[in-house]
Formats: sequence, structure tokens, C-alpha cells
Amino acid sequence: MSTTAIVVLGSTGSIGVQTLEVVRAHPGRFRVLALAGGSNVDLLEVQAREFKPEVVAVGRPERGRALAGSLSDTGIRVVSGPAGLEAAAALPAAELVVGGISGIAGLRPLLAALGAGKRVALANKEPLVAAGALVTAWAQEHGGELIPVDSELSAIFQCLKGEDRAHLARIFLTASGGPFARLTKEQLARVTPEQALEHPTWRMGRKVTIDSATLMNKGFEVFETRWLFGVEWDRIRILVHHQSIIHSMVEFVDGSCVAQLGLPDMRFPIQYALFYPERAANDLPRLDLAERRQLTFDAPDLERFPCLRLAFEAGRLGQTYPAALNAADEIAVEAFLDRRIGFMDIPRVIEQTLSAHDPLEGSTLEQLEEVDDAARRSAAAVIAQT
Amino acid sequence: MSTTAIVVLGSTGSIGVQTLEVVRAHPGRFRVLALAGGSNVDLLEVQAREFKPEVVAVGRPERGRALAGSLSDTGIRVVSGPAGLEAAAALPAAELVVGGISGIAGLRPLLAALGAGKRVALANKEPLVAAGALVTAWAQEHGGELIPVDSELSAIFQCLKGEDRAHLARIFLTASGGPFARLTKEQLARVTPEQALEHPTWRMGRKVTIDSATLMNKGFEVFETRWLFGVEWDRIRILVHHQSIIHSMVEFVDGSCVAQLGLPDMRFPIQYALFYPERAANDLPRLDLAERRQLTFDAPDLERFPCLRLAFEAGRLGQTYPAALNAADEIAVEAFLDRRIGFMDIPRVIEQTLSAHDPLEGSTLEQLEEVDDAARRSAAAVIAQT
Repeated sequence: MSTTAIVVLGSTGSIGVQTLEVVRAHPGRFRVLALAGGSNVDLLEVQAREFKPEVVAVGRPERGRALAGSLSDTGIRVVSGPAGLEAAAALPAAELVVGGISGIAGLRPLLAALGAGKRVALANKEPLVAAGALVTAWAQEHGGELIPVDSELSAIFQCLKGEDRAHLARIFLTASGGPFARLTKEQLARVTPEQALEHPTWRMGRKVTIDSATLMNKGFEVFETRWLFGVEWDRIRILVHHQSIIHSMVEFVDGSCVAQLGLPDMRFPIQYALFYPERAANDLPRLDLAERRQLTFDAPDLERFPCLRLAFEAGRLGQTYPAALNAADEIAVEAFLDRRIGFMDIPRVIEQTLSAHDPLEGSTLEQLEEVDDAARRSAAAVIAQT
Repeated sequence: MSTTAIVVLGSTGSIGVQTLEVVRAHPGRFRVLALAGGSNVDLLEVQAREFKPEVVAVGRPERGRALAGSLSDTGIRVVSGPAGLEAAAALPAAELVVGGISGIAGLRPLLAALGAGKRVALANKEPLVAAGALVTAWAQEHGGELIPVDSELSAIFQCLKGEDRAHLARIFLTASGGPFARLTKEQLARVTPEQALEHPTWRMGRKVTIDSATLMNKGFEVFETRWLFGVEWDRIRILVHHQSIIHSMVEFVDGSCVAQLGLPDMRFPIQYALFYPERAANDLPRLDLAERRQLTFDAPDLERFPCLRLAFEAGRLGQTYPAALNAADEIAVEAFLDRRIGFMDIPRVIEQTLSAHDPLEGSTLEQLEEVDDAARRSAAAVIAQT
């Protein structure tokens, strides 16, 4: 079996750490060419010493200098800042780039990788939310390829394998409903960051865990679905499924549905993306439906979880509304984690930011970054008035 | 869209009637070249007048003469007897043969179709139970192709589409559990033919409905799975799933599972087989999981449903045991429908027939037909002693 040279963007985050677990579980199968992280240089150093990449990239320049010092005995090249991340993402020898950066910060490295014609195993949702049309057009233009890592998107990808896309009728994105699926609006208003960070089934980063609790994460997956599979908004449905066993389902024009199932463990879809189109054996636990006994389903409640409605609205409005949605969400989640606003203020801040948004028709990278900046300021102003 | 010339074997049975419903729902898409039935010449005449085939084949010669008379104004050629069925199955212009004959009677027509290099949409399980190795080797030798029609097998076929068979780990055949899933052994012993013929979810012929109630039908599907997908017995698992929404599921070596789902209506898998590899729109009702609310799963109970155990045992024993299993089942089900034996006598008759079976190593068609005859006599003798 051949060795695949990989770059792990966001190696110190949840996706990055689990990617390296998969790499570790398949000795000789992957060669880690580069690791890139934002600021956690202690973990980056540990990872660098274990995986011996050629390059380590650090998002924050001052941290990069510190890491260069501590890795000076290794011969590993340390690069830093946005240019460093982009250089790591586009390394000529890289065959697969794992996009595990959190937030819109992943956009430019993603474009760098796709621009160099790389296959990207993408976990980072925000670039597809804020700049889905741009990213997919860019990939097509430069021969870059996107393989989803998110369990739901990986599920859809697997369900569509070998099928003619013209036969696709609808996509049912499943949603665990988050930790607060059964709370009333009044109870939701009193939710604390600690409660929101305890997701019942998935282990993930802080931002995505809060997004899961508000269902904005599911809204973001609607964007991923829209752009990765080229389906219109009306063909994407949300199906609440608390057990997170059916990871998503597609319906074909003949009424036949195909679903992908498995235990809720990110290592499955990460491994799938790393090995695609191969499938490799592993010793992760197996799904036993007879033991589970039941799977339940429900319609989403857009009244209690307005973020999902806002995501569909921004998607349908198009233009630069999705970029504003994404920026407002990052700011609102941060404010919630800092206890500056309540849980139900998250959708309120986003909705007010969207209402005030003055959309641009064009959407170059620069324009989208301007919108991102402006929407962040706008959201911050809404929060300041709270 | 081009027109496919089809032959419908068993056109007056449940599969045949539903096949013609699908044909009727897609005008211009199929041309019915031949219809073949066993003895229901009244329905054959009605079907012949509607679909205007070139040939009608009737299993029973004396019925064939009657039908030839009543169709004398149409110019339709009527053929009869086993040779007539085989000729219809191998018509040179036929592009697709639907194998909807019930029981082992379908074996020779199936071999005729496969021997002529036809694609066969196969619903008829018994030939694969009694002669799986023979049928699949014959298909391979003559360029014949088997597309499953059974909902569970169609599900597996759909789940494996685009996948490398080497990545397949296990197949989970789902079983509704039949109408008596919750009865005790004592209650099962008192079940009447009328009760057994009322299947909760599927509308099917009499033989297969009783086989569904004993779970022998699921056992037969284990054989279909074994031979259509080339998987060993140990990789085939039965999963009781009362709602019959998940039609079956495959597990790959990486722990990822793919399932096919839909409403329990045979027109879906029949249409899939007729159109394969296309998928065609239809106005059959759609699955709505949010409305269903829950799917349940359970392990099969081999104590109350010994037929399933007997099927696996005969499969693992190999040689001519499967042919004996199949013959004994046909005789036992007939005796149950005629009220000569009780419901729990069905597995007893089969088990005693298998115990007395003297297996042959070889398995030519003639040998298998001898075994079939002998096992029928043996089963009848067991019944006579009851």
C-alpha cells in the first residue's frame, strides 16, 4: 500500500488531533508533511516531535518565533502568520490537505490548497458558509477536490457514491438536536456556556459545540450540502435524530432512500476522507442496531432554534448574506462563551446583524472579507447594546 | 428514452402483477414481449389483451390450449408446458426477463434466460436456495446477469453500488419478524392459515407469505445474499426490524454502514430492477421519517422461529442440503395451508427431512431435480406420519 503525504491544517484542534489518531492507527500509510496550528504551540511541538513533518506553520507570528526556538534541534522548518498557513496548505509534495481550522480563518489556507490542485479533506464549515460559491468555483478552476469530513456530509458523500447526481431528489441532513433538544424557550434563555459545551454524542471544539446547541451548526451543514453537492435549498431537509446513528440520508427520484450509519465517532468520517476511495479496516467499535433497539426521528423546531431558520434565510437570500451570517455567529458565540449575552441572544444578534446588512452583489475574496469585518462590527454593536 | 423489451415470467402472480403496474405507470418505456403464467389463464388473457405481447406462455399444457382458443383473434402466439416457459424466457429480442415465478418451478426458465445471456430481474428465491452455485456459475458462463427484485436484496444491491466488494465486511438482512413476531411458541402452534396469510406490511403470494411468517423467507434471503453477493454465511446477519423501513444494510471494513430505506411497497424494488442502472421518477408515496417517529430493532429468536436456523444450517452444510431444505419447505407449507399440519410442524417436517437426507456431492441440474423429488417424498412421508 502506498504512502499518502498529508498536511494537517488545525492539527491542535479537535479534528486535527483525531486526524493524527487515525494516522497513528495506520503506521506507514501516511506521511505527515506539515502541521499547522493557530496558537497552541506546546501541543504543536509535541505533535511535531512525534510525526516529524518537514514544516510546522503557526497562525500567530509571535508564537511561531517561540516554536522555532523550541524545535531548533529538529531541523523542522517553522513558518508563521497567514502566509505561513497558506504555504503549508499548498506544499508541492502534499497529496491530501486536511482542513481542520476552525472558523473563517480557514478560508485563505483552503483556497491556497485548492488553488494548488490539492485534494482537501474539509471539516472547516465556515468557508463554505461565507464563500461557498467562491470556494467551489475556485476548486473547479484549479482542479482542487473537496472530500467532506463532517459526519453528515461524509454520509451524503458515501450515499451518493456510484449514483448519478441527476437521480438525487432530496437530502435529509440528520441533527442530534443538540444537548437542549427538549428545553423550552424559557429554559433555553437560561442555558450557561458550561451546559452548552457538554454535547451528548460528539466530541468537538468549543465553537462548533455551541453551534450544535443552537442548531447553527446544522444550518452551516445546509450550506456545505448546498455547495458540496450542488443541490438547491428546497431539496435539503433537516431530520432530528437524537441518537446520531443515521448520519444523513439521500432520497432519489424513484423514492428510494440511502442512508449512512455508524457510531458517532469523528474518527470514522476522518478515516474515510483520508483513505478515500479506499476503505481501511480499523478496530473502532461497531454499530449494533439490535442492541440499540430504537432510533427516533422528529421535525426540527425553528421556533426554539431560530438559528436554523436564519441559516436557510441567509442561504436563500444569497449575495453576501451568508458571509454576514457566519461573521455574526462567530461574534455572538464568542460573546455567549464570555457570558456577555445569553443563549437565546445568539440568534437575536445574528438576526439583527442580517437585518442591518447591506448586501454586495459581487463576492470576490476581498469583498467577502470586507463583509466579514463589517458584520463583525455590526454584531459587536448589537451585543454592546444588549 | 429508449424502450426495453421485457418478458414477465409469473405475470399473474404478485410480482408479475406489480411488475405490470410499474410498466403501466411508465408508458412507452417498456415493451412487453412475452407473458408467462402457470394456470390462471383468465388473468393471462386480460393481461395479454392489455399489453399485446408477441408470446404468452402457460405452464399447464391443457390450460394453454384453452388460452390459445380465447386469444385466437389477437395473433398472439400461445406456447405451453415447461418448454414453452423456457422459450419465452429466452426470446432473442428480450432485453430483460422478470423472474416472478413462485417456487422451484422457476429454476429451468431462469437457467434458460441466463443461458441466453439475458439480464434477469429475479424475485424467485427458490432457484438460488436449491441451486445457488449452479445458477450463478451458469450466469457467469453465459453472460447472464442477475438483478435482485426482493426488497432486501435490492437494498443490498443499492448499498453496494459504486463500492469495492473487497471492502464489504457484513450484511445485515432486515426481517419484519412476520405477523407472529410477538407470539409464544404455544401460540405459534395454534396459528391458522388465515392468520398466517395476513402479513402486516408486504402484499405477496401465498407461499412467500407463509415463509415470511415462519421466517423461512428470511432464511431464503440468506441464500440469495450468499449467491448474489458472494459472501460467506458468517458475514450475513439477521436484524429484526418490525417496520420494514430499512430494507437492509451493509457494513464495510472501516465500520461505516450503508442502508437502503423506503416504504414497504414492492413496486419500488421492482421499478429499480426494471430501470437499473437508471432511476425513474414515480408518484408512489414517499418515506417521511419525522412522521414515522421511530424505527425499532431486535435480534431474531431462533427458538421460536427454527426455520431461520435450519436455513443457515443447510447453507453451511452445503452439498444438496439446500435443495432438500427448499423441497421440504414447499411441501410443508402446502400441508399447512391445507390444514394437514400445524404452523410449528413446518420446521419439524423440514428438520426431519434434512436429518434423513443423503447428500450428493455433485449438483448438476438433474441431480438437484432428483434431490428435489426425493426430499418432497420424504417430507410427505413425515407429514403422513403426523
